[in-house]
Amino acid sequence: MELLKEKIRQEGIVLAGGVLKVDTFLNHQVDAGLMMEMGQAFAELFGEAGVTKIMTVESSGIAPAVMAAYRMGLPMVFARKRKSLTMQTDLYTEKVYSYTKQEESEVTVSKKFLEQGDRVLIIDDFLANGEAALGMARIVQQAGAEVAGIGIVIEKSFQAGRGKLIEQGYRVESLARIASLDDGKVTFV
Amino acid sequence: MELLKEKIRQEGIVLAGGVLKVDTFLNHQVDAGLMMEMGQAFAELFGEAGVTKIMTVESSGIAPAVMAAYRMGLPMVFARKRKSLTMQTDLYTEKVYSYTKQEESEVTVSKKFLEQGDRVLIIDDFLANGEAALGMARIVQQAGAEVAGIGIVIEKSFQAGRGKLIEQGYRVESLARIASLDDGKVTFV
Repeated sequence: MELLKEKIRQEGIVLAGGVLKVDTFLNHQVDAGLMMEMGQAFAELFGEAGVTKIMTVESSGIAPAVMAAYRMGLPMVFARKRKSLTMQTDLYTEKVYSYTKQEESEVTVSKKFLEQGDRVLIIDDFLANGEAALGMARIVQQAGAEVAGIGIVIEKSFQAGRGKLIEQGYRVESLARIASLDDGKVTFV
Repeated sequence: MELLKEKIRQEGIVLAGGVLKVDTFLNHQVDAGLMMEMGQAFAELFGEAGVTKIMTVESSGIAPAVMAAYRMGLPMVFARKRKSLTMQTDLYTEKVYSYTKQEESEVTVSKKFLEQGDRVLIIDDFLANGEAALGMARIVQQAGAEVAGIGIVIEKSFQAGRGKLIEQGYRVESLARIASLDDGKVTFV
């Protein structure tokens, strides 16, 4: 998606350790018009995949996922990273390790929002080591539902995530694929 | 907003302690079409208020806030509830107590996303005791910016939040105002 790549070129900041900071338009400040374009791009990529539900994980996945849900006319569910008081029972839960935050968290989805027969499009802001996407995919499997595809905003193609997801048979579509962040420079695939 | 009230009547579940569960369309599963209608409603309510930026707090505020931002053609910033690795310095921080979760958290916004002269529309999913909205308003003040208004999806009008915000001179617009959740029944204002 050229518009996104242009935005990354202009505003992305490469930090030490292979971290790309995109907080001016994606994960702190949010460019709503760009989010809608992303939603449209996901709708076009997965329009024929028989998707019944869109799933993401709080918080940075919510904006692109809700736009995809809007464009596709589907409900969206965001997995919670910790349990809230009103969500105590009947949960699907998976442990997910975040390399960026160097901590393990639990992602949870209420059982009533995933059914056998659902075909789920998983959307996330970043794909690096694939832990979050794999955790969500395991939740979909727990529910007896199917992963219809995985839609990623920014893929770090130099990390292992894409390979792991493909290996498990998932279709992965990323709006921007980054080959390298070496020398403080963003190089796309 | 009639569509929202109808949705609350049909799908809202009243729990003990004055908790209204709306996880089928707002804060776990999300009805993207309804979010867009909410965004439009906020755009109409605050269209003449000279808003330059929309602000919310993760996670449940993001979907309605990004739709309002889309309809108003403005950037949205979501405050973080805890610091991430890429957000360590130059932060505005305020402590916010959540009665629902019975815990204090810190909400933080990167200084670069709020400027003197900004007129900020604060959007949140619920208004109960007003702690989250007041915390965001204090962040806006820290930045030397102004609160242009506060847009709420569901207001519990039987709690103190609205009064506290009005007392401080803020304009509060809520899409649904609940007078009572007594006897397990939702009664609107």
